[in-house]
Amino acid sequence: MLERLSDKWVTLVLTGLASGPRRYSDLSRRIAGVSQKMLTQTLRGLERDGLVRRTVTPSVPVRVDYELTPLGESLMPLVAAIKGWAEANIQTVEAARKTYDAA
Amino acid sequence: MLERLSDKWVTLVLTGLASGPRRYSDLSRRIAGVSQKMLTQTLRGLERDGLVRRTVTPSVPVRVDYELTPLGESLMPLVAAIKGWAEANIQTVEAARKTYDAA
Repeated sequence: MLERLSDKWVTLVLTGLASGPRRYSDLSRRIAGVSQKMLTQTLRGLERDGLVRRTVTPSVPVRVDYELTPLGESLMPLVAAIKGWAEANIQTVEAARKTYDAA
Repeated sequence: MLERLSDKWVTLVLTGLASGPRRYSDLSRRIAGVSQKMLTQTLRGLERDGLVRRTVTPSVPVRVDYELTPLGESLMPLVAAIKGWAEANIQTVEAARKTYDAA
């Protein structure tokens, strides 16, 4: 389950849903570079884990909306904290790697 | 880098070092079920990322201590938060998976 937290597409989809339900096409536009296959796979994984709810409206054409479940919402502070730590420290980690690899 | 956060052995090693420096043998005893290969590999990865410092004391026999760096320490609240969320919610996630798989 927690491997998902470190998956870039998972954090982008969760963050994309943090401000409310979205249609598939809307998510696809908002997440730069995500392939249809990756977005579908990520959404399915999040739905399976109970973090995202998928609602199908039988209009013509069919409308499919995705939203965070309460469980998904409870994860958002963690997603934000991980993102914040990574942004604040990635340069330090990369410098440490360079030093380690050069040793 | 963040894939490490979801690695069980990484969180166990970081947590094992949270209360201060430890010798390899001490860590090996404290972390149930960890193989020598896995512990060595995990420590090297954490050292490479700048999260753990390795100190060699040229006594006889040689003494090797591991400790969190300030960067490693800055990660601990996140490690604890992830662990807390997982423990509080893993049953909900597993139930959601059962429902999804049965659908």
